[in-house]
Amino acid sequence: MSFDIYPIVQQLRQVRDHWREQQNRTETSHREFPSCEAIAKAMTDLKGVLYPLRLGPADLHQSGEDFYVGHTLDQALRTLQAQAQIELHYRHRSQDTSADFEAQATQTVYTFAQSLPALRQLLDSDVQAAFHGDPAAHSVDEIVLSYPGVLALIHHRIAHALYQLKLPLLARIISEQAHGQTGIDIHPGAQIGPGFFIDHGTGVVIGETAIIGSNVRIYQAVTLGAKRFPKDAQGHLQKGWARHPIVQDDVVIYAGATILGRVTLGRGAVIGGNVWITGDVPPGTHVSQASANVQQAPQHLTLHQAYGNAAAQPDFSAPVAS
Amino acid sequence: MSFDIYPIVQQLRQVRDHWREQQNRTETSHREFPSCEAIAKAMTDLKGVLYPLRLGPADLHQSGEDFYVGHTLDQALRTLQAQAQIELHYRHRSQDTSADFEAQATQTVYTFAQSLPALRQLLDSDVQAAFHGDPAAHSVDEIVLSYPGVLALIHHRIAHALYQLKLPLLARIISEQAHGQTGIDIHPGAQIGPGFFIDHGTGVVIGETAIIGSNVRIYQAVTLGAKRFPKDAQGHLQKGWARHPIVQDDVVIYAGATILGRVTLGRGAVIGGNVWITGDVPPGTHVSQASANVQQAPQHLTLHQAYGNAAAQPDFSAPVAS
Amino acid sequence: MSFDIYPIVQQLRQVRDHWREQQNRTETSHREFPSCEAIAKAMTDLKGVLYPLRLGPADLHQSGEDFYVGHTLDQALRTLQAQAQIELHYRHRSQDTSADFEAQATQTVYTFAQSLPALRQLLDSDVQAAFHGDPAAHSVDEIVLSYPGVLALIHHRIAHALYQLKLPLLARIISEQAHGQTGIDIHPGAQIGPGFFIDHGTGVVIGETAIIGSNVRIYQAVTLGAKRFPKDAQGHLQKGWARHPIVQDDVVIYAGATILGRVTLGRGAVIGGNVWITGDVPPGTHVSQASANVQQAPQHLTLHQAYGNAAAQPDFSAPVAS
Amino acid sequence: MSFDIYPIVQQLRQVRDHWREQQNRTETSHREFPSCEAIAKAMTDLKGVLYPLRLGPADLHQSGEDFYVGHTLDQALRTLQAQAQIELHYRHRSQDTSADFEAQATQTVYTFAQSLPALRQLLDSDVQAAFHGDPAAHSVDEIVLSYPGVLALIHHRIAHALYQLKLPLLARIISEQAHGQTGIDIHPGAQIGPGFFIDHGTGVVIGETAIIGSNVRIYQAVTLGAKRFPKDAQGHLQKGWARHPIVQDDVVIYAGATILGRVTLGRGAVIGGNVWITGDVPPGTHVSQASANVQQAPQHLTLHQAYGNAAAQPDFSAPVAS
Amino acid sequence: MSFDIYPIVQQLRQVRDHWREQQNRTETSHREFPSCEAIAKAMTDLKGVLYPLRLGPADLHQSGEDFYVGHTLDQALRTLQAQAQIELHYRHRSQDTSADFEAQATQTVYTFAQSLPALRQLLDSDVQAAFHGDPAAHSVDEIVLSYPGVLALIHHRIAHALYQLKLPLLARIISEQAHGQTGIDIHPGAQIGPGFFIDHGTGVVIGETAIIGSNVRIYQAVTLGAKRFPKDAQGHLQKGWARHPIVQDDVVIYAGATILGRVTLGRGAVIGGNVWITGDVPPGTHVSQASANVQQAPQHLTLHQAYGNAAAQPDFSAPVAS
Amino acid sequence: MSFDIYPIVQQLRQVRDHWREQQNRTETSHREFPSCEAIAKAMTDLKGVLYPLRLGPADLHQSGEDFYVGHTLDQALRTLQAQAQIELHYRHRSQDTSADFEAQATQTVYTFAQSLPALRQLLDSDVQAAFHGDPAAHSVDEIVLSYPGVLALIHHRIAHALYQLKLPLLARIISEQAHGQTGIDIHPGAQIGPGFFIDHGTGVVIGETAIIGSNVRIYQAVTLGAKRFPKDAQGHLQKGWARHPIVQDDVVIYAGATILGRVTLGRGAVIGGNVWITGDVPPGTHVSQASANVQQAPQHLTLHQAYGNAAAQPDFSAPVAS
Repeated sequence: MSFDIYPIVQQLRQVRDHWREQQNRTETSHREFPSCEAIAKAMTDLKGVLYPLRLGPADLHQSGEDFYVGHTLDQALRTLQAQAQIELHYRHRSQDTSADFEAQATQTVYTFAQSLPALRQLLDSDVQAAFHGDPAAHSVDEIVLSYPGVLALIHHRIAHALYQLKLPLLARIISEQAHGQTGIDIHPGAQIGPGFFIDHGTGVVIGETAIIGSNVRIYQAVTLGAKRFPKDAQGHLQKGWARHPIVQDDVVIYAGATILGRVTLGRGAVIGGNVWITGDVPPGTHVSQASANVQQAPQHLTLHQAYGNAAAQPDFSAPVAS
Repeated sequence: MSFDIYPIVQQLRQVRDHWREQQNRTETSHREFPSCEAIAKAMTDLKGVLYPLRLGPADLHQSGEDFYVGHTLDQALRTLQAQAQIELHYRHRSQDTSADFEAQATQTVYTFAQSLPALRQLLDSDVQAAFHGDPAAHSVDEIVLSYPGVLALIHHRIAHALYQLKLPLLARIISEQAHGQTGIDIHPGAQIGPGFFIDHGTGVVIGETAIIGSNVRIYQAVTLGAKRFPKDAQGHLQKGWARHPIVQDDVVIYAGATILGRVTLGRGAVIGGNVWITGDVPPGTHVSQASANVQQAPQHLTLHQAYGNAAAQPDFSAPVAS
Repeated sequence: MSFDIYPIVQQLRQVRDHWREQQNRTETSHREFPSCEAIAKAMTDLKGVLYPLRLGPADLHQSGEDFYVGHTLDQALRTLQAQAQIELHYRHRSQDTSADFEAQATQTVYTFAQSLPALRQLLDSDVQAAFHGDPAAHSVDEIVLSYPGVLALIHHRIAHALYQLKLPLLARIISEQAHGQTGIDIHPGAQIGPGFFIDHGTGVVIGETAIIGSNVRIYQAVTLGAKRFPKDAQGHLQKGWARHPIVQDDVVIYAGATILGRVTLGRGAVIGGNVWITGDVPPGTHVSQASANVQQAPQHLTLHQAYGNAAAQPDFSAPVAS
Repeated sequence: MSFDIYPIVQQLRQVRDHWREQQNRTETSHREFPSCEAIAKAMTDLKGVLYPLRLGPADLHQSGEDFYVGHTLDQALRTLQAQAQIELHYRHRSQDTSADFEAQATQTVYTFAQSLPALRQLLDSDVQAAFHGDPAAHSVDEIVLSYPGVLALIHHRIAHALYQLKLPLLARIISEQAHGQTGIDIHPGAQIGPGFFIDHGTGVVIGETAIIGSNVRIYQAVTLGAKRFPKDAQGHLQKGWARHPIVQDDVVIYAGATILGRVTLGRGAVIGGNVWITGDVPPGTHVSQASANVQQAPQHLTLHQAYGNAAAQPDFSAPVAS
Repeated sequence: MSFDIYPIVQQLRQVRDHWREQQNRTETSHREFPSCEAIAKAMTDLKGVLYPLRLGPADLHQSGEDFYVGHTLDQALRTLQAQAQIELHYRHRSQDTSADFEAQATQTVYTFAQSLPALRQLLDSDVQAAFHGDPAAHSVDEIVLSYPGVLALIHHRIAHALYQLKLPLLARIISEQAHGQTGIDIHPGAQIGPGFFIDHGTGVVIGETAIIGSNVRIYQAVTLGAKRFPKDAQGHLQKGWARHPIVQDDVVIYAGATILGRVTLGRGAVIGGNVWITGDVPPGTHVSQASANVQQAPQHLTLHQAYGNAAAQPDFSAPVAS
Repeated sequence: MSFDIYPIVQQLRQVRDHWREQQNRTETSHREFPSCEAIAKAMTDLKGVLYPLRLGPADLHQSGEDFYVGHTLDQALRTLQAQAQIELHYRHRSQDTSADFEAQATQTVYTFAQSLPALRQLLDSDVQAAFHGDPAAHSVDEIVLSYPGVLALIHHRIAHALYQLKLPLLARIISEQAHGQTGIDIHPGAQIGPGFFIDHGTGVVIGETAIIGSNVRIYQAVTLGAKRFPKDAQGHLQKGWARHPIVQDDVVIYAGATILGRVTLGRGAVIGGNVWITGDVPPGTHVSQASANVQQAPQHLTLHQAYGNAAAQPDFSAPVAS
């Protein structure tokens, strides 16, 4: 069995050359792109740094925690520094620049590192929120060990820190790794307050300019998305404008709800399962899916109780499984 | 390039100490938490034990099956025993106990091991159900090799066995590993009969107290959830009460349907795509999303045939892709 | 601690023997099933072959690209050849055949290999489409490095090529690996034109006989599924008939929309979020979720703007997060 | 940093082509040479098969021994079979042969496998011999766990079995792996009886046609070598003739002794450290390095007691360290 | 290709059972023997602990040293503790003991750990000695990075510490690992002072009861061995008596020299290449291989200068290669 | 079980600080020492580059050779470049230098790479020499696959090239890796002509300034060493002077022979086993160990034929085992 692979290699090169020409790329002798694999390794390390006994190696004990944390942090930062340097080169590749990207990457990554203790505290608030928000949770440790929402938030809070430090590509790769693992897709640009709890999580999408307050709780398949994609005079998508919802403190959004555009869900609002919202919701309001033929929708209502006991008391239908 | 990581390590310790104080944790010299990594290794082994040629190593042949199964089972059980012992310690850490957790863990894990042959038979019934339920399936082996629903059920049936043996934390970690891989989130407490088939599966959520009969078939994004989260006098969530649906034999639930609360879907009921149910459904009933302005919904109906051939014959709209 | 595992091994064998009897399997001395692990390895290699600097190893540079591509392609093809040979044996196991499966597998895999350059070009068109379709995308490289839709398409386009070359089992395993990673479930039989963009992607399901034109864009949780499962006289599911939608060029389908049956979405149609379609949609039509009590649905409409600024201008609600 | 490696790759190919031309090699599409790495893997497995608890994995226990042994044996034999097939192809590459090398390799390897129980018994006799022959040995298990002589004999006895089964290349690779690890160089052709003990071992060399009886003991740096290298009429070395010593039962050879040519060391002979022997030694004789100025050497004598207590009693000087 | 391995597994079990019977072994449910693999892992860790930047991981920098050292030490001690516990069980397996081996192993390993700083200092003296003793050495770091004598001494000094702490089996395994790597065979019982330098080293053998002073230097193939193996009344080898040389401070022993029995090489003695010594050597004496026919050997002489310039001046022939 | 490792880590740091003070080391933020592990990886790669099918991966075939060679060479050179840069920094660490070590390392490593084709040719001559010199060799391939002498020469010829390019530390580490594996200790400075064959090899030592001609053959335990270690006025060893033998073309040196000092073994000389030479040997001379009491040694003689057939014809005693 023998394959003649030379012509295929040749053609693959031609396709790559064609692509590079199209993209106006010039040849370079240093590494061009960050490596997803390297970043995944750094994230594994950082998870161990933040929760050494729960997310670190199977044989770690309390007595060795600090050494493990220090050693692992050292490795993670070196990896991140190398990848950050690549991103800086990459982003400025077309500029005639004499910037010292090595020093800049080192400084940025160290600034990031200094935020880790505060970041862990924030995550602890998320864990507490999950414990108080889920009747199926037996302990705070179970949550760190097995809740996808916490995993997604560890990635997000790290990615967001790097996004703010102007490393959006690393941030995005880190976010996507959580998305792949949990089905929860949070753009690194999203601003999320303490005590955030995502239950089940599969299908959750949170957009780049979303702003989420404290103690917000959301369930699977919730979308905080954009409503419109305006284009500029040249027909290109306009980028960078605030196009995702603001969710104030203590809001709860049940499974499958879709909130679109720069709308505000007021403090304490409760959004029922599967509802579709494209306007502001005042504080304290409870919204559920409008029964289509009821014109004056009350604030508490139920829908589609097909063949069931038609909701005698106005109860709230939360499509969750906890 | 050099990072001064001492102060960061120091602060991370302070945050951990603060957390432990809050949680009333005392120092301990033995391993405190089960390891997700160790449990994942045991699960990889157990999948090989149950389906050696299809989920075991690439170079295994029939002639060596029993040896592989025995050796791999031995390794899996030792790993599980160690993790079970840790969970027992963990759960009883605040009690002044002289219990022999090592013996207890050994006994529990061996009991679990003895259930594996029956568990494989149950899984075979699930595989058969998938073969009969999916027009795209070419063989039973394709199903074991590539259907996420089967993977989720292998994890669930193992997790459920451990849940019943009072190892809920190990069970939960095992369930979540399937959720991460498949997007199917089944709580280990859920009771599921033989011949269960989940097609596509992404976004499925099945709650802790759900009860599912024989030969039930469900599609992606189906939720069997809780409707309400009552609190006790102190304002804490009430835990442990039956709050999820009962699904009787031969029920089919199409994609995106949401069933909430301790309702019963009677034997042979068919629930259409995207419908929202919070009441009982009698046996044999076909439910589809109510056309809002049709007050007397027939058992077979279609909805939202936007701009299409408005369902001359009452056919059943199943949002599946098989 | 000691487990008596002999009886369990014995019983597991009995269950396996019982299963094999049921399936009319005879003993065989060669490897019976393809290995998911081996195929996953080949896919990792092929991703590196197609995008060496972005999806290949962390330390690769431009100067070594061709060597890496050639060496990795060689390894990938050998692995695929071995697995293809197993699939051929498997599919023809009940026939008294003297076919030379080794030669056949070699020929098939080489034909596949020759399609890789064209396949890379097709994927480049998908990357371009993502760049133009997502306001959050900063560069084409970010898309290759972190967009799940691109990952799903790399798997799909490879799987589809193998499906066409009559290796449906390998194809299916490759598709499912992308599904596990991204939550995007595309059957290898689906025909997809250039410039296809899936944003976010979790929960997308595309069926076996779906046909998708050029420059189509879809969002998370979109289903292109079958509407009915007709059975033949013996009560068996009918297989192999065209049962999934045709999506013509330039169509956009927003999140959560469900399109069922062999319907056609005409060129340039735009399907709003969460709509449910079981009939044809004419070219250029914009469909959004019908306000139930509006009998004559206009082409542009909005629904469920609960408590919001009730759609003064007919804008299009896209439940996306970009 | 960028290297232009194309010309180097090109030149390396030219050198290889030149070599192949010189060696009259033709192109071939199957794997040409056995792999040292694959054979090393098989040897690791076989050592575990022979001494599962002592040379197998760290977490093996008695209860799982048979399963481990069976599974590991299965893997080892498959690896050996593949390598044996390659050796058969290799050795017959210039012949126009239609031999079924696959079947031949399978048969040969199975014959080898059947000899493993007897081989383990032989090795047990070696372990016993070491225990009785070394005052520093505390237990038979210490010997299996840490004596290089035992490691060398495990390799040799396996290599010798393969050598007899006409797989001299595999045999040689296996022998050399022990040589690399222990400094003990035993040609796979050497015939060695039970109860053989090599202490320390570094520098021991035993030639292809050596014959060693039962319960022989040798120390480091002993050579059982050839004396002359006769050439044939064409000036080529004559191969295959008996050119190494015969060592009868119960002989002891102390460190550094050199025995050359087809001489016989008679039963029970004791050869002192550093002596040089090129003639037969009668049974029961004790030989030590001749004190040069003593013409009639007694059977017990000492030499070179420089500045020491000149050996009052004729004791035997054994340059060993036990 | 299929092997019937059942009968072979069966026979291998019979051979093992036979062996266990012979050795009066009873069945046991805990791990019986230390694992060479586990100990090798601990040694790799300990080498990194002692020389973090030179023998630790390739990416370690000064700033992370302490964390690496602490973390790696923690892992090494846990591994050693587990293996020590196994050795204690093993050695007392025939006694009806209620000893707490876990506590005993922990205590012993911690005592060992406390000796590591002193042990590093001792090793530093060895490195200095090498630097001063070898004209080919360019730096102290080259010595740590590449001299087999230093590697052998790291192993020996650790093994000797464990030997003194009554863990002779672990000690022996550790010694043999250095022997396998370097060809230098030092019994863990040997007592060796500071500033010891072994150059080249292959073939060096140092016996259990040898005592070596400060600043001793030896070359390859030097043996410090036993002269006689007396047996007791029952014909068993007598164990545990002082049977190897005492080498006082500042002695140099050139390559291939053999020193046998409990003799003393006095302070500052120099032993020439290949000489054979079985008696005491007074301090300051220079010994070289006696020209056999010279009865009154001077302290400086040369031998075998075949066809050479017959040693006009009494120079000292050192068979070294530095 | 819990170890208090803080004080030990503290003390180890103090010992390290003490050492650094002694060595006048200052703190540095870049990696200080080359990594043996990294260099070992590069050597594995280079061996594959030189002999792809014989020393490369087990699944390589002729059709993929060039790609494997190119890719592997690329990786090896990058690794070497990084290590070379570290060595350059290391050697010039006390100088206030502004040298561009990165460029220098790149240049040096590329020069080295260009010598690889010639180096392979040289090694092919060594393989041919082994084939012609060993009656036990069946093929040239067996020699590449299993002869330690070839392995040692691959390392040496690479190490020597780096030594000449002023990277003596990398060179030394590479040499020692072969020494550890084969027991053959060749200093990277030694100059060795084509067609060099070392049989068995354990214990061979070749010094830094040795010069070896073409077609030389040596056996195990041969030393080409220094005779004296003169010191300068300050009592330091004099370094860098020619102190090892010159061995002219076609010389054979049998096992255990010791050649010391800057002597010359003339073309075609044959040195018998165990002889000790400290003077020049004229071309064509055969030297064997002098029978001590024979004053006029003939050129052909035998010694120590204890109790044997006293060498009727003057044959040459070669202590080899081939």
